[in-house]
Amino acid sequence: MKIEHIGVAVKDIRVSNNLFEKLLGSPPYKEEEVSSEKVITSFFESGDVKIELLQATSPDSPIAKFLEKRAEGIHHIAFEVDDIGKEVERLKEEGFEILNDVPKHGADHKLVVFLHPKSTNGVLVELCQEKKADE
Amino acid sequence: MKIEHIGVAVKDIRVSNNLFEKLLGSPPYKEEEVSSEKVITSFFESGDVKIELLQATSPDSPIAKFLEKRAEGIHHIAFEVDDIGKEVERLKEEGFEILNDVPKHGADHKLVVFLHPKSTNGVLVELCQEKKADE
Repeated sequence: MKIEHIGVAVKDIRVSNNLFEKLLGSPPYKEEEVSSEKVITSFFESGDVKIELLQATSPDSPIAKFLEKRAEGIHHIAFEVDDIGKEVERLKEEGFEILNDVPKHGADHKLVVFLHPKSTNGVLVELCQEKKADE
Repeated sequence: MKIEHIGVAVKDIRVSNNLFEKLLGSPPYKEEEVSSEKVITSFFESGDVKIELLQATSPDSPIAKFLEKRAEGIHHIAFEVDDIGKEVERLKEEGFEILNDVPKHGADHKLVVFLHPKSTNGVLVELCQEKKADE
Protein backbone atom coordinates (compact mmCIF):
# COMPACT_ATOMS: atom_id res chain seq x y z
CA MET A 1 0.00 0.00 0.00
CA LYS A 2 1.12 3.51 -0.83
CA ILE A 3 1.05 6.38 1.68
CA GLU A 4 -1.33 9.08 0.50
CA HIS A 5 -0.99 11.54 3.36
CA ILE A 6 0.01 12.07 6.97
CA GLY A 7 -2.51 13.76 9.27
CA VAL A 8 -1.35 16.15 12.00
CA ALA A 9 -3.70 17.31 14.78
CA VAL A 10 -3.36 21.03 15.50
CA LYS A 11 -5.08 23.50 17.83
CA ASP A 12 -5.11 26.50 15.54
CA ILE A 13 -4.83 25.87 11.82
CA ARG A 14 -3.85 29.50 11.05
CA VAL A 15 -0.82 29.31 13.34
CA SER A 16 0.09 25.84 12.09
CA ASN A 17 -0.33 26.72 8.42
CA ASN A 18 2.25 29.41 8.99
CA LEU A 19 4.57 27.04 10.85
CA PHE A 20 4.37 24.29 8.20
CA GLU A 21 4.87 26.82 5.43
CA LYS A 22 8.14 27.83 7.11
CA LEU A 23 9.15 24.19 7.60
CA LEU A 24 8.27 22.90 4.14
CA GLY A 25 9.02 26.04 2.18
CA SER A 26 5.61 26.34 0.51
CA PRO A 27 2.06 27.27 1.61
CA PRO A 28 -0.94 24.88 1.82
CA TYR A 29 -2.42 24.30 -1.62
CA LYS A 30 -5.97 23.94 -0.33
CA GLU A 31 -8.25 24.10 2.71
CA GLU A 32 -11.44 22.15 3.23
CA GLU A 33 -14.03 21.69 5.97
CA VAL A 34 -15.06 18.05 6.52
CA SER A 35 -18.42 17.97 8.27
CA SER A 36 -18.41 14.19 8.92
CA GLU A 37 -15.27 14.54 11.08
CA LYS A 38 -15.99 18.06 12.37
CA VAL A 39 -12.66 19.41 11.21
CA ILE A 40 -11.09 22.07 9.08
CA THR A 41 -8.18 20.70 7.07
CA SER A 42 -5.34 22.15 5.06
CA PHE A 43 -3.08 20.29 2.66
CA PHE A 44 0.63 20.69 1.90
CA GLU A 45 2.56 18.90 -0.81
CA SER A 46 5.69 17.03 0.20
CA GLY A 47 6.99 15.13 -2.80
CA ASP A 48 4.50 12.43 -3.66
CA VAL A 49 2.79 12.60 -0.26
CA LYS A 50 0.46 15.17 1.33
CA ILE A 51 0.57 16.55 4.85
CA GLU A 52 -2.92 17.27 6.18
CA LEU A 53 -3.37 19.58 9.17
CA LEU A 54 -6.60 19.03 11.11
CA GLN A 55 -8.28 21.47 13.50
CA ALA A 56 -11.50 20.53 15.33
CA THR A 57 -14.61 22.62 14.68
CA SER A 58 -16.52 21.12 17.64
CA PRO A 59 -15.60 19.69 21.08
CA ASP A 60 -16.94 16.25 19.99
CA SER A 61 -14.68 16.10 16.93
CA PRO A 62 -12.21 13.14 16.99
CA ILE A 63 -9.44 15.76 16.75
CA ALA A 64 -10.70 17.62 19.86
CA LYS A 65 -10.71 14.30 21.75
CA PHE A 66 -7.22 13.45 20.52
CA LEU A 67 -5.87 16.84 21.70
CA GLU A 68 -7.58 16.38 25.06
CA LYS A 69 -6.04 12.95 25.66
CA ARG A 70 -2.65 13.64 24.12
CA ALA A 71 -1.30 16.77 22.47
CA GLU A 72 -0.67 18.32 19.10
CA GLY A 73 1.22 15.95 16.82
CA ILE A 74 0.95 13.23 14.20
CA HIS A 75 -2.59 11.85 14.20
CA HIS A 76 -2.79 9.27 11.41
CA ILE A 77 -1.19 7.76 8.30
CA ALA A 78 -3.45 7.33 5.28
CA PHE A 79 -2.89 4.70 2.60
CA GLU A 80 -4.37 4.92 -0.87
CA VAL A 81 -6.35 1.88 -2.05
CA ASP A 82 -8.20 1.18 -5.30
CA ASP A 83 -11.06 -0.79 -3.76
CA ILE A 84 -11.71 0.13 -0.13
CA GLY A 85 -14.34 -2.62 0.40
CA LYS A 86 -11.97 -5.33 -0.80
CA GLU A 87 -9.08 -3.97 1.30
CA VAL A 88 -11.26 -3.85 4.43
CA GLU A 89 -12.17 -7.52 3.90
CA ARG A 90 -8.52 -8.48 3.42
CA LEU A 91 -7.42 -6.64 6.58
CA LYS A 92 -10.27 -8.10 8.65
CA GLU A 93 -9.16 -11.59 7.62
CA GLU A 94 -5.63 -10.67 8.72
CA GLY A 95 -7.01 -9.79 12.17
CA PHE A 96 -7.08 -5.99 12.03
CA GLU A 97 -9.92 -4.17 13.77
CA ILE A 98 -11.91 -1.80 11.54
CA LEU A 99 -13.38 1.29 13.24
CA ASN A 100 -16.04 2.00 10.57
CA ASP A 101 -17.13 -0.83 8.27
CA VAL A 102 -19.09 1.61 6.14
CA PRO A 103 -16.69 4.06 4.45
CA LYS A 104 -17.17 7.71 5.43
CA HIS A 105 -16.87 10.78 3.24
CA GLY A 106 -13.45 12.22 4.04
CA ALA A 107 -11.54 15.27 2.84
CA ASP A 108 -10.14 15.60 -0.66
CA HIS A 109 -12.96 13.70 -2.41
CA LYS A 110 -12.19 10.39 -0.69
CA LEU A 111 -14.03 7.50 0.94
CA VAL A 112 -12.25 6.66 4.20
CA VAL A 113 -12.07 3.81 6.72
CA PHE A 114 -10.02 3.82 9.93
CA LEU A 115 -8.30 0.86 11.60
CA HIS A 116 -8.19 0.70 15.39
CA PRO A 117 -4.69 1.69 16.59
CA LYS A 118 -4.69 -1.16 19.12
CA SER A 119 -4.44 -3.59 16.18
CA THR A 120 -1.73 -1.57 14.37
CA ASN A 121 1.04 -0.88 16.91
CA GLY A 122 -0.60 2.31 18.13
CA VAL A 123 -0.70 3.82 14.63
CA LEU A 124 -4.09 5.19 13.55
CA VAL A 125 -4.30 3.93 9.97
CA GLU A 126 -6.69 5.40 7.42
CA LEU A 127 -7.52 3.72 4.13
CA CYS A 128 -8.69 6.11 1.46
CA GLN A 129 -10.14 5.59 -1.97
CA GLU A 130 -10.85 8.29 -4.53
CA LYS A 131 -14.64 8.63 -4.89
CA LYS A 132 -16.17 7.46 -8.15
CA ALA A 133 -18.67 9.58 -10.06
CA ASP A 134 -21.70 8.05 -8.28
CA GLU A 135 -20.37 8.16 -4.68
CA MET B 1 10.79 19.24 1.39
CA LYS B 2 10.02 15.66 0.45
CA ILE B 3 9.10 13.00 3.01
CA GLU B 4 11.72 10.24 3.01
CA HIS B 5 10.28 7.99 5.72
CA ILE B 6 7.98 7.71 8.71
CA GLY B 7 9.41 6.21 11.89
CA VAL B 8 7.27 4.02 14.15
CA ALA B 9 8.39 3.09 17.68
CA VAL B 10 7.75 -0.58 18.51
CA LYS B 11 8.42 -2.85 21.47
CA ASP B 12 9.27 -6.02 19.59
CA ILE B 13 10.45 -5.65 16.01
CA ARG B 14 9.78 -9.34 15.18
CA VAL B 15 6.10 -9.03 16.14
CA SER B 16 5.77 -5.66 14.38
CA ASN B 17 7.54 -6.80 11.21
CA ASN B 18 4.90 -9.50 10.95
CA LEU B 19 2.08 -7.03 11.62
CA PHE B 20 3.29 -4.46 9.07
CA GLU B 21 3.86 -7.19 6.50
CA LYS B 22 0.16 -8.13 6.89
CA LEU B 23 -0.88 -4.49 6.71
CA LEU B 24 1.26 -3.44 3.74
CA GLY B 25 1.24 -6.72 1.87
CA SER B 26 5.04 -7.08 1.64
CA PRO B 27 7.89 -7.87 4.07
CA PRO B 28 10.62 -5.43 5.22
CA TYR B 29 13.30 -5.09 2.58
CA LYS B 30 16.11 -4.58 5.08
CA GLU B 31 17.06 -4.49 8.75
CA GLU B 32 19.84 -2.45 10.30
CA GLU B 33 21.22 -1.77 13.77
CA VAL B 34 22.01 1.92 14.43
CA SER B 35 24.46 2.17 17.30
CA SER B 36 24.27 5.99 17.62
CA GLU B 37 20.53 5.75 18.44
CA LYS B 38 20.65 2.34 20.17
CA VAL B 39 17.99 0.86 17.94
CA ILE B 40 17.31 -1.97 15.57
CA THR B 41 15.40 -0.78 12.53
CA SER B 42 13.52 -2.42 9.67
CA PHE B 43 12.35 -0.76 6.48
CA PHE B 44 9.20 -1.27 4.41
CA GLU B 45 8.46 0.29 1.04
CA SER B 46 5.21 2.19 0.67
CA GLY B 47 5.17 3.84 -2.73
CA ASP B 48 7.84 6.51 -2.78
CA VAL B 49 8.14 6.61 1.02
CA LYS B 50 9.65 4.20 3.55
CA ILE B 51 8.20 3.07 6.85
CA GLU B 52 10.91 2.50 9.46
CA LEU B 53 10.17 0.43 12.55
CA LEU B 54 12.43 1.15 15.53
CA GLN B 55 13.04 -1.08 18.55
CA ALA B 56 15.35 0.04 21.38
CA THR B 57 18.44 -2.05 22.11
CA SER B 58 19.11 -0.31 25.44
CA PRO B 59 17.01 1.34 28.19
CA ASP B 60 18.68 4.69 27.42
CA SER B 61 17.76 4.61 23.74
CA PRO B 62 15.50 7.52 22.65
CA ILE B 63 12.98 4.85 21.56
CA ALA B 64 12.94 3.24 25.03
CA LYS B 65 12.29 6.67 26.55
CA PHE B 66 9.51 7.40 24.03
CA LEU B 67 7.78 4.08 24.86
CA GLU B 68 8.10 4.81 28.58
CA LYS B 69 6.49 8.25 28.30
CA ARG B 70 3.93 7.43 25.63
CA ALA B 71 3.25 4.15 23.84
CA GLU B 72 3.93 2.35 20.59
CA GLY B 73 3.07 4.51 17.60
CA ILE B 74 4.36 7.04 15.10
CA HIS B 75 7.66 8.47 16.33
CA HIS B 76 8.92 10.86 13.64
CA ILE B 77 8.66 12.12 10.08
CA ALA B 78 11.89 12.37 8.10
CA PHE B 79 12.42 14.78 5.23
CA GLU B 80 15.10 14.33 2.61
CA VAL B 81 17.42 17.30 2.05
CA ASP B 82 20.36 17.80 -0.30
CA ASP B 83 22.46 19.91 2.05
CA ILE B 84 21.67 19.28 5.72
CA GLY B 85 23.94 22.07 7.00
CA LYS B 86 22.24 24.66 4.81
CA GLU B 87 18.76 23.41 5.75
CA VAL B 88 19.60 23.56 9.47
CA GLU B 89 20.69 27.18 9.05
CA ARG B 90 17.49 28.05 7.16
CA LEU B 91 15.27 26.44 9.81
CA LYS B 92 17.14 28.09 12.69
CA GLU B 93 16.57 31.48 11.07
CA GLU B 94 12.87 30.58 10.80
CA GLY B 95 12.82 29.98 14.57
CA PHE B 96 12.89 26.17 14.75
CA GLU B 97 14.84 24.53 17.56
CA ILE B 98 17.48 22.04 16.43
CA LEU B 99 18.15 19.08 18.75
CA ASN B 100 21.61 18.24 17.38
CA ASP B 101 23.53 20.89 15.46
CA VAL B 102 26.12 18.34 14.39
CA PRO B 103 24.50 15.75 12.11
CA LYS B 104 24.52 12.17 13.46
CA HIS B 105 25.03 8.96 11.55
CA GLY B 106 21.52 7.53 11.10
CA ALA B 107 20.18 4.38 9.48
CA ASP B 108 20.21 3.79 5.75
CA HIS B 109 23.51 5.59 5.08
CA LYS B 110 22.17 9.02 6.12
CA LEU B 111 23.32 12.04 8.11
CA VAL B 112 20.45 13.09 10.38
CA VAL B 113 19.38 16.09 12.44
CA PHE B 114 16.27 16.29 14.63
CA LEU B 115 14.07 19.34 15.30
CA HIS B 116 12.53 19.76 18.74
CA PRO B 117 8.82 18.79 18.61
CA LYS B 118 7.91 21.82 20.72
CA SER B 119 8.83 24.03 17.76
CA THR B 120 6.99 21.86 15.21
CA ASN B 121 3.45 21.31 16.56
CA GLY B 122 4.45 18.23 18.53
CA VAL B 123 5.85 16.49 15.45
CA LEU B 124 9.37 15.10 15.83
CA VAL B 125 10.95 16.11 12.51
CA GLU B 126 14.11 14.49 11.18
CA LEU B 127 16.15 15.94 8.33
CA CYS B 128 18.21 13.37 6.48
CA GLN B 129 20.84 13.67 3.81
CA GLU B 130 22.43 10.80 1.91
CA LYS B 131 26.07 10.50 3.03
CA LYS B 132 28.71 11.46 0.51
CA ALA B 133 31.74 9.27 -0.16
CA ASP B 134 33.89 10.95 2.53
CA GLU B 135 31.29 11.07 5.34
